[in-house]
Amino acid sequence: MPKCSVFIATSLDGFIARKDGALDWLPSSDGASGGEDYGYKSFFESIDALIFGRKTYELASSFAEWPYTGKSVVVLSSCYPKTLQPISHNVEGTSLPPRNLLSELESRGVQHIYVDGGTTIQSFLRNGLIDELTITRVPVLIGEGISLFGATGHDIRLNHISTKAFPSGFVQSKYRVDNAA
Amino acid sequence: MPKCSVFIATSLDGFIARKDGALDWLPSSDGASGGEDYGYKSFFESIDALIFGRKTYELASSFAEWPYTGKSVVVLSSCYPKTLQPISHNVEGTSLPPRNLLSELESRGVQHIYVDGGTTIQSFLRNGLIDELTITRVPVLIGEGISLFGATGHDIRLNHISTKAFPSGFVQSKYRVDNAA
Repeated sequence: MPKCSVFIATSLDGFIARKDGALDWLPSSDGASGGEDYGYKSFFESIDALIFGRKTYELASSFAEWPYTGKSVVVLSSCYPKTLQPISHNVEGTSLPPRNLLSELESRGVQHIYVDGGTTIQSFLRNGLIDELTITRVPVLIGEGISLFGATGHDIRLNHISTKAFPSGFVQSKYRVDNAA
Repeated sequence: MPKCSVFIATSLDGFIARKDGALDWLPSSDGASGGEDYGYKSFFESIDALIFGRKTYELASSFAEWPYTGKSVVVLSSCYPKTLQPISHNVEGTSLPPRNLLSELESRGVQHIYVDGGTTIQSFLRNGLIDELTITRVPVLIGEGISLFGATGHDIRLNHISTKAFPSGFVQSKYRVDNAA
């Protein structure tokens, strides 16, 4: 099966966006990051495909420039048929169950997938399909919003790989998920 | 006003206990921490008093040995009158609003307070009364439980002071709260 990785920023209280999807609390969104990309470019170069849900797709589509040029993107949503269906160049939609989707992508030679968006990350975690998590904590409490994590149904043990603190106060930790436990 | 500090462990998904208060997901609770105290003794020696709510008091009272010997403890609960009322040796109860309670403790010469328990921490944070947070992330997702953080009413900016990763995989970050922002 392809390796599935999460690479995401959260507020210190665990939110990936405000309730309406806003990211204004993320200092980098107003250019204050001083050119630091927190390892994103290197991570992005290591993946061959992305999987996320309809909300993340709509957010990405609203950007002036499509942020995933050169990578295959699968939009996972109950709105689509199970078979992968082209939405636009390099973007397909499907409602395949996560495990079946990974098998399909594996048969195409995909080796490393970037799983993004709260709902999709939670579904893949619950199904034991996430291999690595890189979480960057932004030093702010926003009080409410869209949570990175949700119900898991069982404890999920992680192995800490590394942690790095940046001058901005962002703290990035990388974990391997112990899906055998 | 006395300095107020939080020193607490959470699961990676931000819970300080399971819904029923259980801490079985904390490796140190079964003696697996190998003697590492994650800076607790040094922090505990630096404080002169503790403030927490009724649930934390009941949990602490259930331990074979009272964990706060030598320190003044205030139990904050709407069950008590506003004036500080002795519950037992070195333990008093009150329903004073947080700011008034701090003034009262300041008048007694208290300089550094350990604020503990989800409800009390959230109330003090919302009121701009927490100065420092030391959060130790345990590498496990438990899916549901009692959250460290809750509604804040506004963004609360923090200044990152330091982060340390331990061989156990615990990651401890210390923040100063920017209550002026």
